[in-house]
Amino acid sequence: MIDVTLLGTSALLPLPDRALTAAALKCAGHTLLFDCGEGTQTAARKAGISLMTADIIALTHYHGDHTFGLPGLMQTMGSMGRIAPLVLTGPAGLHDAMAPILTLAEGLPFPVRLLSLPDEGLRMDTLFPGWPPMARLTAFPTCHRVPSQGYCFSLGRAGKFNPERARALGVPLALWSTLQSGQAVRLPNGAVQPEQVMGPSRPGLKCVFTGDTAPCASLTEAARGADLMICEATYGQDDQADTAAQYGHMTFSQAGEAAANAQVKRLWLAHFSQRIEDPLVFLPNAQAYFPGAQCGRDGLRITLTFPPDA
Amino acid sequence: MIDVTLLGTSALLPLPDRALTAAALKCAGHTLLFDCGEGTQTAARKAGISLMTADIIALTHYHGDHTFGLPGLMQTMGSMGRIAPLVLTGPAGLHDAMAPILTLAEGLPFPVRLLSLPDEGLRMDTLFPGWPPMARLTAFPTCHRVPSQGYCFSLGRAGKFNPERARALGVPLALWSTLQSGQAVRLPNGAVQPEQVMGPSRPGLKCVFTGDTAPCASLTEAARGADLMICEATYGQDDQADTAAQYGHMTFSQAGEAAANAQVKRLWLAHFSQRIEDPLVFLPNAQAYFPGAQCGRDGLRITLTFPPDA
Repeated sequence: MIDVTLLGTSALLPLPDRALTAAALKCAGHTLLFDCGEGTQTAARKAGISLMTADIIALTHYHGDHTFGLPGLMQTMGSMGRIAPLVLTGPAGLHDAMAPILTLAEGLPFPVRLLSLPDEGLRMDTLFPGWPPMARLTAFPTCHRVPSQGYCFSLGRAGKFNPERARALGVPLALWSTLQSGQAVRLPNGAVQPEQVMGPSRPGLKCVFTGDTAPCASLTEAARGADLMICEATYGQDDQADTAAQYGHMTFSQAGEAAANAQVKRLWLAHFSQRIEDPLVFLPNAQAYFPGAQCGRDGLRITLTFPPDA
Repeated sequence: MIDVTLLGTSALLPLPDRALTAAALKCAGHTLLFDCGEGTQTAARKAGISLMTADIIALTHYHGDHTFGLPGLMQTMGSMGRIAPLVLTGPAGLHDAMAPILTLAEGLPFPVRLLSLPDEGLRMDTLFPGWPPMARLTAFPTCHRVPSQGYCFSLGRAGKFNPERARALGVPLALWSTLQSGQAVRLPNGAVQPEQVMGPSRPGLKCVFTGDTAPCASLTEAARGADLMICEATYGQDDQADTAAQYGHMTFSQAGEAAANAQVKRLWLAHFSQRIEDPLVFLPNAQAYFPGAQCGRDGLRITLTFPPDA
């Protein structure tokens, strides 16, 4: 199960009813934050989401509208008594970009660690105990005016457990959960491997956060089949495609097209230019490509659950 | 005439309905901002106040809840096409404190100037053309845990113009406004000085913004007779006076007492701890000392006008 809350939907500058684009992802009681512009901490409070124990903040790039909320959020975490380390990740240039931010927030009662994600992604429980073993955060390159990346959070799902097999192999009930979590168990008459009692792995869940980007093949590839794609859609009108390309952004139509190409299940549009008064006006442009497209709004929330077994 | 808008009333961290404490002062179409925590730009939009052409931001100290909104506000000013210089002022340590903030906001299309106010205060029109000649911003020392200062903005008022005298001295109507603005005029039969046609100077207007401070004599002195005092009141209960003293803050009672001692005309309380759910609950504590005390709230606004002539 993954719980995703869109904290903001604005581009460039925060508006009273549209905070800067960011999203919180909760899984098994743990929290990950995508981007952190000025006001993200307030937007989270408004949405009823606590970021105080977030394990990792994944930055898509280092423009101010995606990062200027960090010093304040970190100070608030500190004033709330946080002592657990906080990991910040982002594209190339992380250390330089974070230097002034860490200077501003100096004196925190918890360590801040800067981490570049490995190419194969980060298995969350290797750094943060308590995340499900099959939860993984992966970055993929995007196409903005500066080094940038989007994120794919995936939660894998093991195959179906076969209790008859387990019983036949003499595995006591108390050890079933060990096998279910993917680990072998040792019995007097030899070891039992998870594969012996589990069916083939089942489809998991996948959530993609694009950050700022023009349409690009790496996004389509990373988002393929995602349960939820939160996609930037800075410009409403199709005739703004040139401007969008110039600044490394997308139109509503292009976001719809990207979702269609990637065959995602759900599309939330976000990162609206402040010139867009009501994003719903332009929603049909995205829906022409992806009929299920939704306009994101601050506080929009979804719980993604595993599909029922076939 | 001075127009003052309280943009926020929170201490330490921004809440959905209580932005961090800051105030905008408008006079003759020009703008001054006191403090700039995370979210001040959004609070201003919410209050219908444009900060885009603010001439000066006066910081009371460099804690994050009073400064972390600067990078975002300056970037927004830049993206709105500002090219006019922006002045930042504050207590000792201004250059060091602003260094990481200016690094974050680098690439602005306007210059940012750091300025320590002279002891006698800044006559606003010497730096910012268009401010009334008798508008002055003065800093006074306050008592917080770090170097800190409060601000007093005063708008002086010349004496009453005597048209009979001006006519008798042969001053043409077109030159009356020059004399009224405090400048001499040259006539064929000699110069006429403003004093010759103006009565004794009249009471002006005064607005005081305390920033974070424990009660102190310099505040009482600076605020004496102010038309409006925006005073920190971090703690509601009298039995929190020790905590207040420890952190360099005030209780509601102490803020009321400070206003009474300074014989101000109006008191707005601000900078409420996030533990205070409804500041009105504690208002009687301040009113016991200063009956006219009001709880500040985001967007609270007043237009201060010169008192009618006696």
